[in-house]
Amino acid sequence: MNHSSLSRPTLLLRKAICRTNIRRMAQKAAEHDLQFKPHMKTHQSAEIGEWLRDYGTEAITVSSVSMAAHFARHGWHDITIAFPCNLREVAYIDSLAGNVSLTLLVNTLFTARTLQKKLTHPVGVYIELDTGAGRTGLRPSEVTRITPLIDYLTGKETDMLQWKGFYSHPGHSYNARSEKDIRAVHQSVLNAIRSLRNELDSVYGPFEVCIGNTPCCSTGTDFRGVDAISPGNFVFYDLMQARIGSCSTSDIATAVACPVVDRYTDRNQLAIYGGAIHFSKESLTENGATHYGLAACAKEQAWSVPDPGTYLMRLSQEHGLVQCSSRIFERFSIGDIITILPVHSCLTAHLLGRFQLMKSGDKIEQFG
Amino acid sequence: MNHSSLSRPTLLLRKAICRTNIRRMAQKAAEHDLQFKPHMKTHQSAEIGEWLRDYGTEAITVSSVSMAAHFARHGWHDITIAFPCNLREVAYIDSLAGNVSLTLLVNTLFTARTLQKKLTHPVGVYIELDTGAGRTGLRPSEVTRITPLIDYLTGKETDMLQWKGFYSHPGHSYNARSEKDIRAVHQSVLNAIRSLRNELDSVYGPFEVCIGNTPCCSTGTDFRGVDAISPGNFVFYDLMQARIGSCSTSDIATAVACPVVDRYTDRNQLAIYGGAIHFSKESLTENGATHYGLAACAKEQAWSVPDPGTYLMRLSQEHGLVQCSSRIFERFSIGDIITILPVHSCLTAHLLGRFQLMKSGDKIEQFG
Repeated sequence: MNHSSLSRPTLLLRKAICRTNIRRMAQKAAEHDLQFKPHMKTHQSAEIGEWLRDYGTEAITVSSVSMAAHFARHGWHDITIAFPCNLREVAYIDSLAGNVSLTLLVNTLFTARTLQKKLTHPVGVYIELDTGAGRTGLRPSEVTRITPLIDYLTGKETDMLQWKGFYSHPGHSYNARSEKDIRAVHQSVLNAIRSLRNELDSVYGPFEVCIGNTPCCSTGTDFRGVDAISPGNFVFYDLMQARIGSCSTSDIATAVACPVVDRYTDRNQLAIYGGAIHFSKESLTENGATHYGLAACAKEQAWSVPDPGTYLMRLSQEHGLVQCSSRIFERFSIGDIITILPVHSCLTAHLLGRFQLMKSGDKIEQFG
Repeated sequence: MNHSSLSRPTLLLRKAICRTNIRRMAQKAAEHDLQFKPHMKTHQSAEIGEWLRDYGTEAITVSSVSMAAHFARHGWHDITIAFPCNLREVAYIDSLAGNVSLTLLVNTLFTARTLQKKLTHPVGVYIELDTGAGRTGLRPSEVTRITPLIDYLTGKETDMLQWKGFYSHPGHSYNARSEKDIRAVHQSVLNAIRSLRNELDSVYGPFEVCIGNTPCCSTGTDFRGVDAISPGNFVFYDLMQARIGSCSTSDIATAVACPVVDRYTDRNQLAIYGGAIHFSKESLTENGATHYGLAACAKEQAWSVPDPGTYLMRLSQEHGLVQCSSRIFERFSIGDIITILPVHSCLTAHLLGRFQLMKSGDKIEQFG
């Protein structure tokens, strides 16, 4: 792509890498006999949805009712909203459930009863499991809370709620700092799921278990006890994923192209048009330095990180400061474009709202 | 306002507090004989621009060319883009300069020469001073770089560039943790400006000095040597400003109303619909705990922070977890609305994109 057309912070997308990431994950799901229900929150794009369809995707996962509605408009009929059901959107949920097969996360009897009372179209229900992330869901050990919920959901009077099984996002895999760490998390998740299956299978089985997170799905080799996966970030990956051992930097499919607006020779720093409203303030601390991204050199099919001494060291609302090694600093003049790999591609993509394809320069819009 | 209409994370705005904040700052500017050129990046709203006009504002400051164009469309004729000039937008700048009086930050001869060559409409120019923030601009001590730039800008051949003086954003005031700390920063900024004036006044004077930051403008009592102020955040304030000593929590004009979607009794935590894409990941660390916001109780004309033990302790893309004191935890059920004061209102307002007025429920849109 010719950089001459870029004048503002622009999210670049390498379609070939993105499609390779999708193909690899779809193949892995097929090999392990897992339903592939990718999470769309990372890209939020109907077009990238079509790339997922090219590799056989039929069901998807989203993080909000509005995102579900967006993808329903783009022809998706099997949608899981992987977020504890927001009762304030019950009317919106109900209208959507009239058009597509919708699955919700329901973690309490109160939520289940309210839905049963207010819905006029049936929905699928997962109970969310907290397999160690400590965010949302019931712990697998909380059987005395889980079984009354299943009893209610599978009872005769709950005709609006069809219990399908369990959903878990093992977000604690983000604490990993190596592939080995991720495997340990993944194994503990599998153990928790198997022990729950041992308790419940004879009474409530068969039921489905879906896990959704990029680190475990990228590195896992054992998925026994799991029926479906819903990773999201893998379509792009990012520096956080590379750091925790999910991918290599050459798998990262997006980066932000930013105009250089000033140079500070005495401190080897470039001021760029690219700030917190473009990158987000998600940071990584490496070698004692906290950064919001690393400068990238684009090669034919991938990115390389040019120099460990060149990183986005500071963000204001629209300003960024890039600390450079002397060698990299000398390469850039005011008016040039510098390309930065983001720490967290989900947030950066959300903020920038559209993609520009690296080769063609074509633009892809997100929803909203 | 009746909360029954809220179903998603919603930015609430207390118009009375916001207008009081505006009136107070406009009066202060008038008392000190300062031109008031408020920064619009915090609210990005044409309507709040009108409230500023109600208190006599005639000139404004923005952080991007597109934001300048937005406010030009809403009848503002004197606009400073307080960002090192982005040469990749020179055509856009030139077309805008044909319609309004535009002032740019120009920190290098290279940028000045490029503008002079490419512009067809004249613009005003500030040289940006780095008065201690270490972000962008020339240090006041760099007289040997400043004077050639002024010489060029005031030369006969630079008919497109009208040098006006200096602009500085003393962003290091954000390191303050008390009003006394801010005053110390403010005094050092004034000292730097006065010493530069001593060097330059006799040769290049009179020229203008504009400083733009909410902490110094909120607490400063001495503005000798300064001609104009361009604070932005003061229209809303936020927890960061309260923390550093710029305001009290009762001056904060915005908060985010979030649906409660789950409750965790064993850890006194509420799961809310409200995550990093609503609040931003700007954080504060207080009493050893890092948080992204504090729960608020709304009173007639202001907010109170209900309990220091109740804070937004964790954010995912759309999930938030609120750690509550036992007393506060018991007050909230699934489906309720909890209101959270943001750490950094500029980023939160940018992310949410619109305001809902607390009393009337009327909505105010941002640009973009």
